[in-house]
Amino acid sequence: MSPTAPSPTPLSSTPLSSTPRSTIKRGKDRAQSDRSALYAVLDAGLVCNLAVVIDGAPVVLPTAYGRVDDTLYLHGSTGALSLRTASTDEVSVSVTLLDGVVYARSVFHFSMNYRSAVVHGRPRVVTTDEERTIGLRAVVEHLAPGSWDYAREPNAKELAKTSVVALDLAEAAVKVRGGDPVDEPDDVVAGGVWAGVLPLRQSWGEPVAAADLDALDVPDHLRSRQVTTPGR
Amino acid sequence: MSPTAPSPTPLSSTPLSSTPRSTIKRGKDRAQSDRSALYAVLDAGLVCNLAVVIDGAPVVLPTAYGRVDDTLYLHGSTGALSLRTASTDEVSVSVTLLDGVVYARSVFHFSMNYRSAVVHGRPRVVTTDEERTIGLRAVVEHLAPGSWDYAREPNAKELAKTSVVALDLAEAAVKVRGGDPVDEPDDVVAGGVWAGVLPLRQSWGEPVAAADLDALDVPDHLRSRQVTTPGR
Repeated sequence: MSPTAPSPTPLSSTPLSSTPRSTIKRGKDRAQSDRSALYAVLDAGLVCNLAVVIDGAPVVLPTAYGRVDDTLYLHGSTGALSLRTASTDEVSVSVTLLDGVVYARSVFHFSMNYRSAVVHGRPRVVTTDEERTIGLRAVVEHLAPGSWDYAREPNAKELAKTSVVALDLAEAAVKVRGGDPVDEPDDVVAGGVWAGVLPLRQSWGEPVAAADLDALDVPDHLRSRQVTTPGR
Repeated sequence: MSPTAPSPTPLSSTPLSSTPRSTIKRGKDRAQSDRSALYAVLDAGLVCNLAVVIDGAPVVLPTAYGRVDDTLYLHGSTGALSLRTASTDEVSVSVTLLDGVVYARSVFHFSMNYRSAVVHGRPRVVTTDEERTIGLRAVVEHLAPGSWDYAREPNAKELAKTSVVALDLAEAAVKVRGGDPVDEPDDVVAGGVWAGVLPLRQSWGEPVAAADLDALDVPDHLRSRQVTTPGR
């Protein structure tokens, strides 16, 4: 799909694509095909891993992101090679939330409970200050909700230093695992080995003021922040 | 480096390599060059993101891993395309730990505190049952310490279904950000905007027994499990 061509139907009403690379082959029963599952994982994650190909070899790097409807925005310095590459070539973006370790009766069946989204596509470089601002706002609000209207907005010089790329959420795979281990019947019958899930949780600690901050109350948008936990 | 050739010096005594792709260009002051920093990030993480190139495009997927000295082991089904590709071509592996969100006076300086390791290389397929067992043990013990000797070990059929690849930790980049935002002096002087760090913590919840488990105490190796938290 051309990044600038209008979609015949809004993406949000289409199911996730099933191109060969976005079709889940291993653990099909864990694949989610509705778009809301993709949004849920992307919105719950904080950092993504962006993979690009440089000189024929893969390079994967963690980076921030933000979402506006069916567009994923990534930003970075105008000098960053990974983002320069991402703006011209195919990329793959992974967001992974680990919800627990699955302890089985046999080591072969140990697993993880997780929510995972992988997006494929060829991003376009955002060229207008208007959309660059939309993209940056999405990234900042994703990382720190309520902060765009609270902190100082970027000036022209800062905007010029920032590169923003936009990736359509057209081709993606979502995989979610939850619940118990899947053990061999013989091992269940044999008994004597604990099996179940050790949940992993994320939580925010107490805000730590910067050393150079004059006495100032922690603002509400920060104080009230909640970690998005799995709905299962 | 040939994967089977003996190293002239043990890797653990050599600093991290500085090939062009493993030399950190953005945020050089955050780069760590000692091997112990690499071990610390890999040992604290639970899941990695493995990037491979398939049909010229990058594909990144979350997966489990384990480390034995200077070897990173990845495992998967013998049918998984990503692992088949990883066993012949260059890969990039990212482990990212997010420690907090950095709130700045200006949106331009919002950031994350994190520990990140990216490893590059061409893995080799593990071909002996002896090393396959070493690799699987490393993956299981990384995910669930104490479990290999507690749960049933893999039988011949299970071993045959599992593919293990080994990646030398020869070429890697480690980046760590901690502490306060770096704000513009004018914004610090102006005051009135809260700045600092909102720490993000991971913790284990209460173990949840499998529905098909007969009454059995949670074993000590699970009960006593601690999340590795940042040392800063």
